[in-house]
Amino acid sequence: MDKQYVIGVDMGGTNSAFGIVNARGEILYRGAIRTDSYATAENYVKALSDGINTMIENAGLDGQIKGIGMGVPDGNMYEGTIEYAANIPWANKSIIPLAKMVTESTGLFCCLTNDANAAASGEMAYGSARGMKDFIMITLGTGVGSGIVCNGQLVCGHDGFAGELGHVIVRRYNGRPCGCGRSGCLEAYTSATGVARTAREFLETRSDESLLREIDNRPITSKDVFDAAEKGDKIAKEIFEFTGQILGEAFADFITFSSPEAIILFGGLSKSGDYLMEPIKKAMNENVLYVYKGKTQLKLSELKDADAAILGASALVWEK
Amino acid sequence: MDKQYVIGVDMGGTNSAFGIVNARGEILYRGAIRTDSYATAENYVKALSDGINTMIENAGLDGQIKGIGMGVPDGNMYEGTIEYAANIPWANKSIIPLAKMVTESTGLFCCLTNDANAAASGEMAYGSARGMKDFIMITLGTGVGSGIVCNGQLVCGHDGFAGELGHVIVRRYNGRPCGCGRSGCLEAYTSATGVARTAREFLETRSDESLLREIDNRPITSKDVFDAAEKGDKIAKEIFEFTGQILGEAFADFITFSSPEAIILFGGLSKSGDYLMEPIKKAMNENVLYVYKGKTQLKLSELKDADAAILGASALVWEK
Repeated sequence: MDKQYVIGVDMGGTNSAFGIVNARGEILYRGAIRTDSYATAENYVKALSDGINTMIENAGLDGQIKGIGMGVPDGNMYEGTIEYAANIPWANKSIIPLAKMVTESTGLFCCLTNDANAAASGEMAYGSARGMKDFIMITLGTGVGSGIVCNGQLVCGHDGFAGELGHVIVRRYNGRPCGCGRSGCLEAYTSATGVARTAREFLETRSDESLLREIDNRPITSKDVFDAAEKGDKIAKEIFEFTGQILGEAFADFITFSSPEAIILFGGLSKSGDYLMEPIKKAMNENVLYVYKGKTQLKLSELKDADAAILGASALVWEK
Repeated sequence: MDKQYVIGVDMGGTNSAFGIVNARGEILYRGAIRTDSYATAENYVKALSDGINTMIENAGLDGQIKGIGMGVPDGNMYEGTIEYAANIPWANKSIIPLAKMVTESTGLFCCLTNDANAAASGEMAYGSARGMKDFIMITLGTGVGSGIVCNGQLVCGHDGFAGELGHVIVRRYNGRPCGCGRSGCLEAYTSATGVARTAREFLETRSDESLLREIDNRPITSKDVFDAAEKGDKIAKEIFEFTGQILGEAFADFITFSSPEAIILFGGLSKSGDYLMEPIKKAMNENVLYVYKGKTQLKLSELKDADAAILGASALVWEK
């Protein structure tokens, strides 16, 4: 009989959470280790393997695990490597064959990709993209990430790093500086930090009243903007309209590329409800090429936030 | 033994050219019929089938043909249909199951796609993209078309119409009107007609001398611009620099999507040599996200112009 369980590992800069997942996308057992308290990749892998093996043992599922999928920053799916990951102390200066090391240490098949691709895998296996062969996953968090699926497969490109749609240029002239060193990237406008920046700009350049003006003891966050919009604040709503329009325009161009059945949003900002979704839909519809008009759905992730990263990573194993 | 020959059909608005092709990409026998002189799809298919059958008979290759691939305007690969093709009198008001009709009429397997996808298939089977699994084909002709290959497969999207990169918006504000009804599309700047328009604009808004000013009895073409550049004309060279920069900026964004091993150029304008290629490379390199820098080749098609469309269409059959 085929093995019925997979393991997902969500490696963040601070913690690595993992879990045993069944084919219905339920996390049955969980564990976690620190990511940042190891000096070498060897030590990290040793600790991770110990944690995973203990979890399998406690679950009584020895011999029933199909493999381990990992969502890791700067992960290269083809090579199974983690490459110059800025936020991981034991991986920020080199290319580390992480999947191979985990396999050697646990005896289990292991594969990895970056977080956004893992999220797309998760939606395809257990979430909003079940049954779809062509869709784009956009994560709206501190940054803007993307996972692209065409013909039922993750698009990783010739080098394993395709799908950085947060860094498509949406404002060619006088664009906002982006963390990538260029200007005008989608991420600079539509990440949580981009929205906070829009809020600052709106408040500075306008004089009308806003609840957001009452926040003066700390930086405004995208959550503040949402809370203000909920209270009927006009500027807050306009901040979402501005953000949604840029997203919708960009999505119209993405559709021109891969004509996806759906664009699926994930991440904190995607929970802004109609304040964000309506302007996205409007701009998508107004800007999309006629041949695609009305064909691409805009959807929200169906995976629970806390579980999505583990589920997404685990789904990689089913795909293999 | 596997059948060793395929047939490619290049359906244009006026003529439909076809040929028998071997696995090395050589066209061994040829034929053609009119596209536009039939009142119904049935009559067109009858004439096409007669032409193809006669060619096979003359070649003595009965029973050795693996199938027929067709490159058709507004072709839907999944459905094998031609859909509302504006320039085809017998197909401009409906969806016609062309592949099925050709199969019924010839007894041979038949599949079809649009011209740009067929071109990408041709490069993958016989041309510049041999051995590549991830590349983008850009055709710079009267319009700008594209064929995208990811994971070794044509990207057709959920509806069969993916890959209209000529209609990505490259100038969001005050963009040139495009034939698609929107403004600022890549095609409006970098097609042969876009280049001719750039020439007119440059000549109108500037006062420096140019050989192009001597052409006053007819509209300037992109070929005129090339000829002038060859004679050292400064404005002509700047027209190519302007065009190449817009292409290079757009290519940098395309790379962000699918991280292709190469972007392959085809079509009349792609023969403008370094006048166009150098500015493209420069803008690509200056605008691409660091993770992709220097990784994507810019190449020219290796298929002979006159044969490329038949070869591309024929290559679809090997893929199936």
